[in-house]
Amino acid sequence: MKLTGQNFIAGKLSGRGTETFMAVNPSNGSKLTATFQEATKKDINEAISKANEAFEIYSQKSGNEKAVFLETIADEILQLGDVLIERCCSETGLPAGRITGERGRTMNQLKLFASLLRDGSWVDAKIDTAIPDRQPVPKVDIRSMQKPLGVVGIFGASNFPLAFSVAGGDTASALASGCPIIVKAHPSHPGTCELIAIAINRAIEKSGMPNGVFSMLHGTSVDVGMGIVKHPLVKAIGFTGSFKGGKSLFDTANKRKEPIPVYAEMGSINPVFILSNTLKENQNEIAKGLANSVTLGVGQFCTNPGIVFVNKTKDYSKFIGHLAVNIQEVEANTMLNSGIKNAYESGVNHLKSKNKVTILSQGKENAEGYRGSAYLFETTAKNFLRKDYFEEEVFGPSTIAIIADSKSELIESAKKLKGHLTASIFGTDKDLKDNIELIKILEQKVGRLMINNFPTGVEVCHSMVHGGPFPATTDSRTTSVGTGAITRFTRPFCYQNFPQELLPDELKDSNPLNIWRLVDNEFKK
Amino acid sequence: MKLTGQNFIAGKLSGRGTETFMAVNPSNGSKLTATFQEATKKDINEAISKANEAFEIYSQKSGNEKAVFLETIADEILQLGDVLIERCCSETGLPAGRITGERGRTMNQLKLFASLLRDGSWVDAKIDTAIPDRQPVPKVDIRSMQKPLGVVGIFGASNFPLAFSVAGGDTASALASGCPIIVKAHPSHPGTCELIAIAINRAIEKSGMPNGVFSMLHGTSVDVGMGIVKHPLVKAIGFTGSFKGGKSLFDTANKRKEPIPVYAEMGSINPVFILSNTLKENQNEIAKGLANSVTLGVGQFCTNPGIVFVNKTKDYSKFIGHLAVNIQEVEANTMLNSGIKNAYESGVNHLKSKNKVTILSQGKENAEGYRGSAYLFETTAKNFLRKDYFEEEVFGPSTIAIIADSKSELIESAKKLKGHLTASIFGTDKDLKDNIELIKILEQKVGRLMINNFPTGVEVCHSMVHGGPFPATTDSRTTSVGTGAITRFTRPFCYQNFPQELLPDELKDSNPLNIWRLVDNEFKK
Repeated sequence: MKLTGQNFIAGKLSGRGTETFMAVNPSNGSKLTATFQEATKKDINEAISKANEAFEIYSQKSGNEKAVFLETIADEILQLGDVLIERCCSETGLPAGRITGERGRTMNQLKLFASLLRDGSWVDAKIDTAIPDRQPVPKVDIRSMQKPLGVVGIFGASNFPLAFSVAGGDTASALASGCPIIVKAHPSHPGTCELIAIAINRAIEKSGMPNGVFSMLHGTSVDVGMGIVKHPLVKAIGFTGSFKGGKSLFDTANKRKEPIPVYAEMGSINPVFILSNTLKENQNEIAKGLANSVTLGVGQFCTNPGIVFVNKTKDYSKFIGHLAVNIQEVEANTMLNSGIKNAYESGVNHLKSKNKVTILSQGKENAEGYRGSAYLFETTAKNFLRKDYFEEEVFGPSTIAIIADSKSELIESAKKLKGHLTASIFGTDKDLKDNIELIKILEQKVGRLMINNFPTGVEVCHSMVHGGPFPATTDSRTTSVGTGAITRFTRPFCYQNFPQELLPDELKDSNPLNIWRLVDNEFKK
Repeated sequence: MKLTGQNFIAGKLSGRGTETFMAVNPSNGSKLTATFQEATKKDINEAISKANEAFEIYSQKSGNEKAVFLETIADEILQLGDVLIERCCSETGLPAGRITGERGRTMNQLKLFASLLRDGSWVDAKIDTAIPDRQPVPKVDIRSMQKPLGVVGIFGASNFPLAFSVAGGDTASALASGCPIIVKAHPSHPGTCELIAIAINRAIEKSGMPNGVFSMLHGTSVDVGMGIVKHPLVKAIGFTGSFKGGKSLFDTANKRKEPIPVYAEMGSINPVFILSNTLKENQNEIAKGLANSVTLGVGQFCTNPGIVFVNKTKDYSKFIGHLAVNIQEVEANTMLNSGIKNAYESGVNHLKSKNKVTILSQGKENAEGYRGSAYLFETTAKNFLRKDYFEEEVFGPSTIAIIADSKSELIESAKKLKGHLTASIFGTDKDLKDNIELIKILEQKVGRLMINNFPTGVEVCHSMVHGGPFPATTDSRTTSVGTGAITRFTRPFCYQNFPQELLPDELKDSNPLNIWRLVDNEFKK
């Protein structure tokens, strides 16, 4: 399949711009074929206008119709076959096994939202029927449900070229909600983006959706992204990436004449706490698991454990020793692009330059392409409590052990933490009973708290919360993974005194969709 | 009961400031007894620190404990007796019947949230149990529910001195969610605020809640309010009032180092559309109802119908004639304060000064105190489509009839509308069938759409949406009236691989609270 390098605007290709760029293979620094064209202002306007036109039609589609559409996208992605896997591997340096797995996850996400739509109860239907003879005033009939917001702009992540990119979690949830989307293609894997765009356009055609429901724009500068965020017809933004990028979109969106919500999933260092008894009993197993979690995917996960708090008991040094050995054995694998590799090196060098921070071990080195060596640092909790830079994300395969002299230092360190996506506590039953206070503190700091689990590996399910207090995200009230992500793109809407025939099916007395509803204070189907 | 005029900080009185003010009786301009003390910076800090300390305890209270607390507040408000009604009437100029009714609504709001807490299902509990033998990777146990955000700052409205003030809707929903509150007392009814603060403090004592769960600060300048919004320990803001006030809090909150959500319910002019057949059949009844809705409470409702679109059929002039007569007969009643009265006069004079805007009728006049005369203006839809000032809220008993020469002018006018809280359509069955497009357009513009109902009178129930697209509110994804208001102050939180005994009751296998939960994709109790 030959790539065009063009922008996809409501089913048509557009290559009217003059600025171009090429994708780079991070495993060797070579340029990959196809010249990609940066979207022009006209491209941005056209894509968004078409999306807004499509909204009128698409927002009225039934849950079943949207479900078929999402399932067809999943099918079409699979139909792309090995071309997709190969292109994605060469653009990201990630191994074929990982990309194949991620394709599976991407398809499952789309299918999960399809099943949510078929079930239909997600709209949160509430019905309060009329009581005409109520005193002192009659009660009128009032019904409400969730409705889509309008055109959504989506910024994919470089580290999940399929699961959080053109047809990733934000796309699946926004399309499920009934919103058309404009995707800003990630310049780190533009060919992968184009292939997925082809699959989505085929699905649009097969399932009879309006073309404007999907557009994809290329761009290496911030102009294309800012053009989307500033456009008055765009009503919400989904973003996964750096703090700097996310915060800048958030600030821009809030300065608009009509501010709009920005759901930015930004940096997180996912603190891990290892309590004293488990340190004694499971030191080997935890050290091995932790080293694996730190270096998985060359450490390029939002949930990568970047900081590990350990109580300085007599078993502590053995645990740290095991961890150091495990880190030392890790191969230097290819990172996603030169920018990420350089930022990782800067982050590592920043820690190296600090007083009272020691390097405990370093993984293998390899000069070929953009590779990142694993690192294990160490400092004291006293130092952590004094300095603020330990919570800056070092995106890559490194972590720092923070050694606490006492339980109270551990508690103080937990209290000092900013918002993160996750925290993990490793402990025996006794450890956990002795550390209820720590659990309560961490509940205020993160979106997901784990016991004896490593943070990497995010289950896509109803109960997942992939979010957390600022600065982990710009909106702690939401999740970007799992079915809960759909309500980021909806708002409640209320019908008062409507005749039955003008109500949507979700709110009709006969409940034709057989969904769960709160009817006169009773939850029923 | 003698008023102290002091600030209420976590159960203690504070009058350390030097700036003071007095309440004014708007019916005659006289000052009312008690000198109120503006909160100092120290007061603000102390109140918020105490609230943050209280959060640790209060956020762990059970639904039943919080329900008892809310019900006790309601009881204590009633126990204040006629003192409350009298003070409130003299501070607002509103009649005793209205204030007594509003007290009932305020108590009902508190009790509605209490019943929501006793039911318990509002926490949106989701459970995905483990599948240890799942391939290719095991599935771990994941559970999530809503958790409170932290300290909430609340800004009451002048127009609902009870139902949207110290113990109003924002207070009821924030306290129900598990968040401590800092209320900025409205300087237009500070004595009413103090009485309610006394009732809340009595309820805190009786139901054994931590004192820090409630503080109330006085202030006439913006400093006190901004001090609350800027404080790093405050995690969300509830506001009801003007666009200028709400937007300024929103902007300030977004410029914080840690941005926080601001739920500002701001201006709205609640467009009404009157379709042709009903204009013929029900002109008298609609004219009477509309005049009543426009002038109810001296037009000082967020849902006041400030703009009425009418199709220029042959019945139009008769309808307008009826409306004009009805408006003409309305007494000039006392407005809430001199500021509101002056702003109303400016708004009316602004419309009077415009070309192609005619005064169709004026209500009675009365020079005593701060009274507002009713007004009915008229202009053409062509003029509405050309000018932007018709959507500026004129807060008071006035409305403007917009005369459309054709159905397409009506549609274009609807398309031009900004975001509002409500819209109403009056029509016969035939009218409605002929105007599906209008209904679809208005669905994008408001939070609540009514058929043959006037917008004033907001039912407090599960399905109510009192919200809407910007600029009606700063967050269209929420409602400030009805039980849905609770989730403004919560975020989803996820427990992974937790032992049963460490899970909150809401998420334990045994479901001890007997709440509705989504368990392995099935809704059940």
